Amino acid sequence: MSTETPLPYALLESAVGPGIFAALPAKVEIGECWARDGLQSLDTVVATDKKIQMIDRFSEAGFAHIEVTSFANPKYLPQFADAREVLAGTKRKPGVGYRVVVPNLKGMERLVTMLDEGIKVDEALFVCSASEAHNLENTNRTVAEQKKEVAQMMDMAKKAGLKVVGSVLTSFGCPITGDVPIEVVRDLGRWYVEHGADYVQWGDTTGMANPRQAYAFYRYMFEALPGVPFIVHFHDTRGTGMANNLAALLAGATIFDGSVGGIGGQPAGYRPKYHQGYTGNTVTEDLVCMLEEMGVRTGIGQDEVVEIGRQAEKILGQTLRGQVTQCGPVLHKPRS
Amino acid sequence: MSTETPLPYALLESAVGPGIFAALPAKVEIGECWARDGLQSLDTVVATDKKIQMIDRFSEAGFAHIEVTSFANPKYLPQFADAREVLAGTKRKPGVGYRVVVPNLKGMERLVTMLDEGIKVDEALFVCSASEAHNLENTNRTVAEQKKEVAQMMDMAKKAGLKVVGSVLTSFGCPITGDVPIEVVRDLGRWYVEHGADYVQWGDTTGMANPRQAYAFYRYMFEALPGVPFIVHFHDTRGTGMANNLAALLAGATIFDGSVGGIGGQPAGYRPKYHQGYTGNTVTEDLVCMLEEMGVRTGIGQDEVVEIGRQAEKILGQTLRGQVTQCGPVLHKPRS
Repeated sequence: MSTETPLPYALLESAVGPGIFAALPAKVEIGECWARDGLQSLDTVVATDKKIQMIDRFSEAGFAHIEVTSFANPKYLPQFADAREVLAGTKRKPGVGYRVVVPNLKGMERLVTMLDEGIKVDEALFVCSASEAHNLENTNRTVAEQKKEVAQMMDMAKKAGLKVVGSVLTSFGCPITGDVPIEVVRDLGRWYVEHGADYVQWGDTTGMANPRQAYAFYRYMFEALPGVPFIVHFHDTRGTGMANNLAALLAGATIFDGSVGGIGGQPAGYRPKYHQGYTGNTVTEDLVCMLEEMGVRTGIGQDEVVEIGRQAEKILGQTLRGQVTQCGPVLHKPRS
Repeated sequence: MSTETPLPYALLESAVGPGIFAALPAKVEIGECWARDGLQSLDTVVATDKKIQMIDRFSEAGFAHIEVTSFANPKYLPQFADAREVLAGTKRKPGVGYRVVVPNLKGMERLVTMLDEGIKVDEALFVCSASEAHNLENTNRTVAEQKKEVAQMMDMAKKAGLKVVGSVLTSFGCPITGDVPIEVVRDLGRWYVEHGADYVQWGDTTGMANPRQAYAFYRYMFEALPGVPFIVHFHDTRGTGMANNLAALLAGATIFDGSVGGIGGQPAGYRPKYHQGYTGNTVTEDLVCMLEEMGVRTGIGQDEVVEIGRQAEKILGQTLRGQVTQCGPVLHKPRS
């Protein structure tokens, strides 16, 4: 719909100049976290064929990266007991980065076995918190222990030909200890890069960032780790997800994570007491439509992403948090 | 809480410079629309004493402007049949702009009678859509007819010593006809100013703006109408409310409307078919906390605005859309 419509405020900008929007990228990549970060937050296990249906729709729609599943222990996260079936059943679209999350060595060994058997995966994501207290709570390991295991897993992933995403949890603050020193955050990102990470994902794990911080953060990290592709990953716990993504965009970021319907965050049944309120990711539908309306191309159609949001609601049997999903994209011409 | 905490990203900014945040205002004014724009959207009539309780809490908390009630015909909007009682019962705090909305001459006559009887009001808000089609749908009058009546009401308000807010509805797009020419929007704002308006409120009536547009729009209007105080009023229909407020802030705006819990929009029972999805305003609690976290002082405490959000939920008997209301403000120090 909007892709062919000239920007309605072109006249405005030509009058006053683009200002802070002067360096806006022409296009960005969107990563879709619904099938992993999203589904892990739900109580109900979604049927394998429904997951595959959604993942295939994501790739057809134009998402650049798709979180497909997790290699968490199925005893603890039964949502992902079908990791093999989902990966095997997905129609692989060339150019799309199909991503899996690997929380521990056991999961990594399971992944390597599948890869040996011909199952295809493009990217493996590993996590470590910048906050010691959060890492302990999240993984039951110290940061030092976590890094040791992650380094080993990263080696295995690289040897298997996968790209590696190093995720820095609590990059913008810790829900247990508050502010996290920026040097600690930066050094964990740098550590990932030195150990072969192809991407660093800066996770605002419990939605603590504000736009001024997000903007300075990304500018700082672009200087500290030049040339490293960053993945912007804001949770929307405090309603700042969209504004923080905007700030990161204005700082030069070009890869953004979202989750259809905004679902995501702490696994169901493992939600710690310190994380109250909404845990989910920035809503993909709203993010894509905002970017497209700003003239930043996501490769994804607005009407299509709205339809995807509606399909997700049908599959999950509930209204999710996508707002364009309810009202549709912005109207630029008279209603017919 | 945060007011005494040094900005946690001060180090970040000192390293990379403030960039686009260099001209951030030290403080802004927040207008609270809950008691009018908010309550008009609900099916249930809220008890007069509960309204007064909330309005008094708003003024104590530090809101600069408060929409108190509407002089709409109580036959059509029974929510505001108690306009006189609410105004008379409110504990007036010096410096706060207590605002009423006046949709037509009948309402204006009612207001003048009350003023004559000693009821106090500070600001009267009048509306007219930039979009002809929207004005017709909203008021059953053409824009020309609307302006004629508004001009008359503005005269009466000025004579009664009130400040006048001229509200330009559909400033960022019309849900019936799409893009609205910027000259038409500008000229309606200018018309208000020429007829004595003290403020121009630019209404994104059905949440159609995007941040790039919002930024250019405010820069353009600041040039077109220099020295006129603008009221930023974004509805959150497409999840862009917070990001649009950020963009307006970066363009130099300093007066922002929100509604506690995000309630607002089309009056209950009069919701036109073209306006689907969420109709409400930007959530005040989330907006205040975002601004405070950015070091922009609203005069309102974060803990207090969260408590106000919770009180609104108690009064209305439902969970509203305030997200900090669920999780509380950002934690900067270790949990005690």
